[in-house]
Amino acid sequence: MAELRIGLIGSGYMGKAHALAYRAVPGVFALPAVPILEVLADVDAATAKGAGEAFGFARSTGDRRELVGDPRVDVVDITTPNVLHKEMAFATIDAGKPVYCEKPLAPTAADAKAMVERAEAAGVKTMVGFNYLKNPITVLAKEIVESGELGEVHAFRGTHLEDYMLDPDSLVSAWRLDPRSGDGVIVDLASHVVSLARHLIGDIEAVCADRDTVVTERRAAAGEETTQTVEVADQMRTLVRFAGGAKGTIEASWIATGRKMGIVCEITGAKGALRFDFERLNELYLYTTGQAKGREGFKTILTGPDHKDYANFCLAPGHQLGFNDIKVIEVRDLIEGLVASDAKPWPDFREAWQVQRVIDAISASGREDRWVRTAEF
Amino acid sequence: MAELRIGLIGSGYMGKAHALAYRAVPGVFALPAVPILEVLADVDAATAKGAGEAFGFARSTGDRRELVGDPRVDVVDITTPNVLHKEMAFATIDAGKPVYCEKPLAPTAADAKAMVERAEAAGVKTMVGFNYLKNPITVLAKEIVESGELGEVHAFRGTHLEDYMLDPDSLVSAWRLDPRSGDGVIVDLASHVVSLARHLIGDIEAVCADRDTVVTERRAAAGEETTQTVEVADQMRTLVRFAGGAKGTIEASWIATGRKMGIVCEITGAKGALRFDFERLNELYLYTTGQAKGREGFKTILTGPDHKDYANFCLAPGHQLGFNDIKVIEVRDLIEGLVASDAKPWPDFREAWQVQRVIDAISASGREDRWVRTAEF
Amino acid sequence: MAELRIGLIGSGYMGKAHALAYRAVPGVFALPAVPILEVLADVDAATAKGAGEAFGFARSTGDRRELVGDPRVDVVDITTPNVLHKEMAFATIDAGKPVYCEKPLAPTAADAKAMVERAEAAGVKTMVGFNYLKNPITVLAKEIVESGELGEVHAFRGTHLEDYMLDPDSLVSAWRLDPRSGDGVIVDLASHVVSLARHLIGDIEAVCADRDTVVTERRAAAGEETTQTVEVADQMRTLVRFAGGAKGTIEASWIATGRKMGIVCEITGAKGALRFDFERLNELYLYTTGQAKGREGFKTILTGPDHKDYANFCLAPGHQLGFNDIKVIEVRDLIEGLVASDAKPWPDFREAWQVQRVIDAISASGREDRWVRTAEF
Amino acid sequence: MAELRIGLIGSGYMGKAHALAYRAVPGVFALPAVPILEVLADVDAATAKGAGEAFGFARSTGDRRELVGDPRVDVVDITTPNVLHKEMAFATIDAGKPVYCEKPLAPTAADAKAMVERAEAAGVKTMVGFNYLKNPITVLAKEIVESGELGEVHAFRGTHLEDYMLDPDSLVSAWRLDPRSGDGVIVDLASHVVSLARHLIGDIEAVCADRDTVVTERRAAAGEETTQTVEVADQMRTLVRFAGGAKGTIEASWIATGRKMGIVCEITGAKGALRFDFERLNELYLYTTGQAKGREGFKTILTGPDHKDYANFCLAPGHQLGFNDIKVIEVRDLIEGLVASDAKPWPDFREAWQVQRVIDAISASGREDRWVRTAEF
Repeated sequence: MAELRIGLIGSGYMGKAHALAYRAVPGVFALPAVPILEVLADVDAATAKGAGEAFGFARSTGDRRELVGDPRVDVVDITTPNVLHKEMAFATIDAGKPVYCEKPLAPTAADAKAMVERAEAAGVKTMVGFNYLKNPITVLAKEIVESGELGEVHAFRGTHLEDYMLDPDSLVSAWRLDPRSGDGVIVDLASHVVSLARHLIGDIEAVCADRDTVVTERRAAAGEETTQTVEVADQMRTLVRFAGGAKGTIEASWIATGRKMGIVCEITGAKGALRFDFERLNELYLYTTGQAKGREGFKTILTGPDHKDYANFCLAPGHQLGFNDIKVIEVRDLIEGLVASDAKPWPDFREAWQVQRVIDAISASGREDRWVRTAEF
Repeated sequence: MAELRIGLIGSGYMGKAHALAYRAVPGVFALPAVPILEVLADVDAATAKGAGEAFGFARSTGDRRELVGDPRVDVVDITTPNVLHKEMAFATIDAGKPVYCEKPLAPTAADAKAMVERAEAAGVKTMVGFNYLKNPITVLAKEIVESGELGEVHAFRGTHLEDYMLDPDSLVSAWRLDPRSGDGVIVDLASHVVSLARHLIGDIEAVCADRDTVVTERRAAAGEETTQTVEVADQMRTLVRFAGGAKGTIEASWIATGRKMGIVCEITGAKGALRFDFERLNELYLYTTGQAKGREGFKTILTGPDHKDYANFCLAPGHQLGFNDIKVIEVRDLIEGLVASDAKPWPDFREAWQVQRVIDAISASGREDRWVRTAEF
Repeated sequence: MAELRIGLIGSGYMGKAHALAYRAVPGVFALPAVPILEVLADVDAATAKGAGEAFGFARSTGDRRELVGDPRVDVVDITTPNVLHKEMAFATIDAGKPVYCEKPLAPTAADAKAMVERAEAAGVKTMVGFNYLKNPITVLAKEIVESGELGEVHAFRGTHLEDYMLDPDSLVSAWRLDPRSGDGVIVDLASHVVSLARHLIGDIEAVCADRDTVVTERRAAAGEETTQTVEVADQMRTLVRFAGGAKGTIEASWIATGRKMGIVCEITGAKGALRFDFERLNELYLYTTGQAKGREGFKTILTGPDHKDYANFCLAPGHQLGFNDIKVIEVRDLIEGLVASDAKPWPDFREAWQVQRVIDAISASGREDRWVRTAEF
Repeated sequence: MAELRIGLIGSGYMGKAHALAYRAVPGVFALPAVPILEVLADVDAATAKGAGEAFGFARSTGDRRELVGDPRVDVVDITTPNVLHKEMAFATIDAGKPVYCEKPLAPTAADAKAMVERAEAAGVKTMVGFNYLKNPITVLAKEIVESGELGEVHAFRGTHLEDYMLDPDSLVSAWRLDPRSGDGVIVDLASHVVSLARHLIGDIEAVCADRDTVVTERRAAAGEETTQTVEVADQMRTLVRFAGGAKGTIEASWIATGRKMGIVCEITGAKGALRFDFERLNELYLYTTGQAKGREGFKTILTGPDHKDYANFCLAPGHQLGFNDIKVIEVRDLIEGLVASDAKPWPDFREAWQVQRVIDAISASGREDRWVRTAEF
């Protein structure tokens, strides 16, 4: 059977999720090629070795450039902080290899655009890990919207609310506080909602946002008393106008006390409405007009074998997929997109760049107190 | 026992709710005066007579001016379409009588301001029926915010979503489509959320809104094929900035397919968060930091005798108050505010004017695509 | 208009609920007669006077026998502890007047049967306050079952769970601990579920129950250290077999920590299932087979004007009825049943006796560890 | 690194779940030995070959006896219909190898006991796949119960409700209809709840059950018009008495229309209560007395890194584990229990036999209409 030798850069939260997905995917899906855990790179040789062994990689390295150039690596998978994505993506593209990169693609739309252009000029396939697009619930939502079951959509509400940055003393995600990584929660979490909004509703033409830094002083480093001044956004809310005419709001916060996985999307049209909340990852709420009188209500749909990809994990409905299962679906799409000559993975760098343009427009709008068109970026 | 003779104008949806509240309140609460259903006015004598008898009024009239001047009327209660409020309020104030008026107070802030000034100049007490402020859940929410249980509040999200105007052929609330009544759903529903936001968080300094008319052609009259062009807002979403520093969004829609009583408020602070959804009128969700490790979660609080006013209706917790019970609490506040010489009812015309200023700012912002300060109105 | 002069015995939790209902009902419904709050009786003249004035009764008395014989009383309404029901019902029946009695009708089926026989022999109309039968949600559930939407019903689960007796030091409902009042939670709470089960599914032929007293020592009186030994049931669960073939369970507990109004019923048939939980008094969950593939789910139905009696309270759906509103519906049924010569109120003593037979069978089964047929009682 | 060579018998629903777990587990947990997918057996060589390749097994065979005797197999994993478990377990035990067997262990307690005795006599380690015991939510529930947070437990309610046998024409699980497989839903689904009840509360001393076959005629085979008469239980409900004094109910149905994964457990004690519903696999509801006045409520706890095993899958709370992840935890326990000389896997055959004794008592009780002591089996 064909093989796809993976070079994975990064072994943190996302690096592990990717590694788990590669291990699991051949058992779950029939694939055109089997992924081989070829080499893992991390900041130093020892870290890479430890993680590489834990995840089951054949080899490891403390030098990510070596990984990119390694002839036994067929695809480079980048899960480092986003400020590093461009350099590694460029090297991979220049090596003529496909790139699979975690979201957000880059700190800015300009960077993302440069990455798109480099990849397209080189004819290299790309993919970006907007994993929630792969959730069967998202697939179901899209199917419902496209089928016309909701009628013409006029309203969208999307949030991504977590609270992992609530504690000023926490050092979780310290690199996310560096402005070079992008504008805080906007690039980190809002990007998920923007990708969902684009997928489910369509292009976003203009935004008008309010962003602010609530926790302005945070601890600088472990064991230290000193603090650093933070300027990236802790919370953001924006009005959005879709090219198709729908209106909406998108919100993101990493100081949303009590919320842990608060991706919530609500879509309302002339004939129906749907809602999902990824703190209940396997549920979709659906209302349609035309129900029998006195029997109208939102229904709660639980995923099952009738929904895309579910049956490959489990034959029984309602038994539920988890966060890592969704990454398995994403990796299946990666492999299928890379192996077939007439296919390509999705979402690719171009789509991620479109997301990033909205992100930049949001950040600019929030700083300038005005409506900003996505086309400005 | 002292008596308070009620002159009620209007016998529709709200007129009936008021009448029921007057009937019920003396049995529920100990009052300084008992309300007497003295006279009901409606558009014509027959309508007034039918409703008056049904609701238990002693007399009725087809002439609302006669009601205002009636020496046996102690307080005038206005539940007509809002475009008529000013005229009747002026007449009542000029007659030196207190006014109890349904929300929204007026179609515009200018009208509301004129009503405030006239009432205050005349030394007449006033009250406006923002009933949801009286829900024990709202009282609990305010107590939680003010106690500091949530820490400093940085985020607010509020919606009022219903779908009673979804059908273009419906003639429900036809008068609400007249621009003279105000800007559609903004004045009709957003006013509830604005009043809650002001009550729970504080003054709103500025807004940036998006408003639009989705159903632009609606049936003109029963039995007719002709349609009318509608220009008032069907849906609206706005960014809001509070004077105290918190940021938020407010949304209103009367074409929110599937939603029936979608007043939802979420308040997030540095130490906690709360949420309520008035489709579950007796529940409040509360999260606080500092819970035992591994035991963190939002709790669902059901109203009971430990919450304000509940025990007067029922001694057993969780047995639930309904929409009309909340109006009973409002009427209790009216009577107490009117009878005691050193008290006054709340919310009064002045508070309702402040709400209306936000409403007008929202409508203007939505038409002009810019941030608008409430102080402009 | 015709009048129905009410003599109310008892001014506690239920007495107040009845008084509120009489006050409210003429405003809510068109009635064949208006209830007059004629006289209130309680344990002594002072208590009766205070409550009578608070509730709006014309007169009061400390002698309930006087009330029964009062020629100005048309109907006697009994809301005292159930051990006293029989004596008062007998006196009322003997006076040729209709009786409206709170549930449970009596401590034993034998007593209930005696009351039925006396009333029927005298041709006196009766009604028992199984209020939850009047909830529009219950009416909707019955309509769904009877329409065949669920197919043939094979399963029923019903609970009534509260926690008001959890605290051994509480003196709430002390009279309920007296075995002469019946077997604790079985007579007090299970009676609600039994009445719902009979109404929604049909006759219960046999039961097999487990009952026990968990808190065996409770404080004897306020301010005292001494305790009393309790023998009535704190919790009970029973298997039930319906005459129509369905099987089920019924559970009741007044020490169900955390539950406040835990009447939950689930009905499952070959073509559908429904569920309601009266901690959400206005919601019904409905599943039916035959939904589109991939769109199957339980729907949440919120009460609205399309459901029985709702529109009389409120024209807007989802705005919600409360506990006291349901009592208003019950009182409407009382008045209609009493006034029309060819009608009678429901549920009457005979129905309440049937409920009590099941209650007695449950208690006996729980004491004897065997299946017991309802017909034994 | 040490290896544990797996011989898997069966490649259906559960066979695949096991295979996926073996593939995933070394990436998720640090293990004392790595599982090797050595050989897969199924009913014929072709089936075995197809599944073996799909799941990643090195070899396959159509002869399960060959697998058991294969010297390159270290542990035999049995996922066939339960009627076949004994024969294969005996062969494995006789070969001196550990056995990992899907639940239920056997159709009867007698068979299960024979398996326990054979394994214990041979000193062979065993494990049974009661996967839901491994869910972090179950671990949390047990921790809460054992810590005394609920006080003394007096009530348990457990259900396992699904609807996969609702359709009489369905051939899903046809072998489950054979009485030789045990008593239908009792052995198939109730066994899960019994294992949870024993784990969370303790030994079950006696049961009194009602069981029945609702769909008495089912299609006999694909493409045929003929039907077979079915006698095993479609639904069952039982009273249960725990050795520690708590009382409860257990229910199981495979014709519970609309329910897909209805394992619901509720545990109530003097100081608190908890509830979980595995249609929401990552949530636990907890109530404790002693909350601040007016702030009492059930909280919803979402799994996260503070709960057992979660962090190995994902560092972010609320991101959710799926059905297959729980099987990964189970397999981790298997490997740890097999490799360490002083450890053994849990739950083992002995525990599964205890579960089966309750199952047999339930079935007998349901057939004989009497309380049955578990010790009878």
